[in-house]
Amino acid sequence: MPRSRGSRAGRGGRTRTVAELGEFGLIARLTTLVPTTGPGVALGIGDDAAVLEFHGRAVATCDVQVEGVHFRFDLARPADVGWRALAVNLSDVAAMGGTPRYALVSLLVRPETPVRVVDGIYRGLGAAARAHRVSVVGGNVSRSPGGVVVDVTLLGEAGRVLERNGARPGDGLWMTGTAGKAAAGLFLASRPALRTRGAAALRAAYRRPSPRLAAGRALAKLRAVTAALDTSDGTAADALHLADASGVGVLLDETRLPLPDGLAAAARAAGRDPLAWALGGGEDYELLFTARPAFARLASSVARTAGIPVTRIGDIVPLDAGRWILGAGGRRRPLAAAGWDHLARSR
Amino acid sequence: MPRSRGSRAGRGGRTRTVAELGEFGLIARLTTLVPTTGPGVALGIGDDAAVLEFHGRAVATCDVQVEGVHFRFDLARPADVGWRALAVNLSDVAAMGGTPRYALVSLLVRPETPVRVVDGIYRGLGAAARAHRVSVVGGNVSRSPGGVVVDVTLLGEAGRVLERNGARPGDGLWMTGTAGKAAAGLFLASRPALRTRGAAALRAAYRRPSPRLAAGRALAKLRAVTAALDTSDGTAADALHLADASGVGVLLDETRLPLPDGLAAAARAAGRDPLAWALGGGEDYELLFTARPAFARLASSVARTAGIPVTRIGDIVPLDAGRWILGAGGRRRPLAAAGWDHLARSR
Repeated sequence: MPRSRGSRAGRGGRTRTVAELGEFGLIARLTTLVPTTGPGVALGIGDDAAVLEFHGRAVATCDVQVEGVHFRFDLARPADVGWRALAVNLSDVAAMGGTPRYALVSLLVRPETPVRVVDGIYRGLGAAARAHRVSVVGGNVSRSPGGVVVDVTLLGEAGRVLERNGARPGDGLWMTGTAGKAAAGLFLASRPALRTRGAAALRAAYRRPSPRLAAGRALAKLRAVTAALDTSDGTAADALHLADASGVGVLLDETRLPLPDGLAAAARAAGRDPLAWALGGGEDYELLFTARPAFARLASSVARTAGIPVTRIGDIVPLDAGRWILGAGGRRRPLAAAGWDHLARSR
Repeated sequence: MPRSRGSRAGRGGRTRTVAELGEFGLIARLTTLVPTTGPGVALGIGDDAAVLEFHGRAVATCDVQVEGVHFRFDLARPADVGWRALAVNLSDVAAMGGTPRYALVSLLVRPETPVRVVDGIYRGLGAAARAHRVSVVGGNVSRSPGGVVVDVTLLGEAGRVLERNGARPGDGLWMTGTAGKAAAGLFLASRPALRTRGAAALRAAYRRPSPRLAAGRALAKLRAVTAALDTSDGTAADALHLADASGVGVLLDETRLPLPDGLAAAARAAGRDPLAWALGGGEDYELLFTARPAFARLASSVARTAGIPVTRIGDIVPLDAGRWILGAGGRRRPLAAAGWDHLARSR
């Protein structure tokens, strides 16, 4: 039976679904869309388990993208979903100062999910994998109880790692890049006709976050850098996570927050406070880190190496000095988490 | 506020749900129910990524359990679901001849999922982890688009590994344990009042499969053993997977299949052919392997070391000799896959 037309659109010109390909057919197809081999992959996809080589210690993280919770197909293309599914994990490895190496991908789809959607997800995931020299070494495909789910485990290597618990009073609080771009980008993605200043870059920042791997590696080499995490829950919530893990207080100076081009214009269109996005928006996937005073003279060199600005946005203080946001004119208010609860909220 | 009664059943005596605990509350609770530290865990749950040590090469696999596809809460207790979620991955590491070390667990639940269900899943997963000295080093919790999903990535160590592609004509086809017990156990789990001979053990085999780790390690040490995989899709389907990967033919002698106690009685009650379960049932998580003739005199020693019988169930033949099931009286019929397609079928 000739497969050319039939395998394009299924019988009668309908959209071809994953159920028509079947589990093994789909797996065979998807493995052609991502890099599956590379240095250190002694045995990749196709056996009961992959066989891998690590130099030094390994880092391991997993994070999931759920349709209706973390993404919606009306706001992001399938390829963007695939990119994000790997990028959020790459960001975790970046926050440790590690180098990503190997990924395992669990995909849940409905029988009626179009093959082109799954193709798109894997193409995007493959693009992120190639950009960061990651090999996809395992995974599985199964039927979803609802929407599409992409669960990625990412393995990497690390020398010195940046933990969350090393911040000490007297350290500065720093971040890479800008804050609030993903929240603004999400709003703009839901208003595709809106043409505010910098809108395209903000939408792209939401859809295709850039994990700060070069910055993480550069920071991990410096003993003056004492702690780090990535900003996935929101700058304020993540500053609290860091303070909690380190047992310290923190003063976050909102007047110093580096804001992306066009944030104010997007916020005006949305009737929102741009600083609320910068403090509470989440999903920026920048690095939030602490460093001893000696770091100040190294910062510009890190920024040059990593290709991303680094900005001091506050100070680490003793635990009993509390956690505060410093506003314009020296006003202070309690630093409260305004981040995501992935059980309770959806987008 | 006293937490004793309130934290048991929530306000007004309702069943407490995961939404009431929230994402971070749930994570904090679940990490108390599984082993999170152990040798090689330089940094466990709580940071952006775990930091791990491997001796020798690493093996990595991931497999998911989806409510309504792989399990149903009316046929398995939450603790059984948790046990299975790790056990199916342990079985993959066993099939490579590896030693499991570290697990990462993604859990998807609905806001209204009772906390006791999630507790049960993690208790069962923790029991399997303790039984095999596995540390849970990472994971995440998120909202499900439907039922409960438990996705586990398991990392281990290995010396020589057993791949699927090493079978050669002249090798024997062998398996550990018995075939058909999970299919019989699933049927019996759906008929809890049925009391056929051996029913309790069959139900337990379905609900809490025993991964053959000791057998896998013993087999990997023997050069006479040429290939292996675990029987997750069904003895027939998995024999085909092995033959496909190795590029060989296979004669599977169904008269030699080791059948568990009570299989015939359960099949009679179900109006099924016990051999259909043994060939097509799947989810037995035994090891199916091939070995050169010299293995015959080592088999009883492996069985003793591993505490599980090993049985020769057929022969590897040249590719052009085909793939056949040999029945009683020397009749042969084509070996066809009757395994699960996890996209198309549900239970």
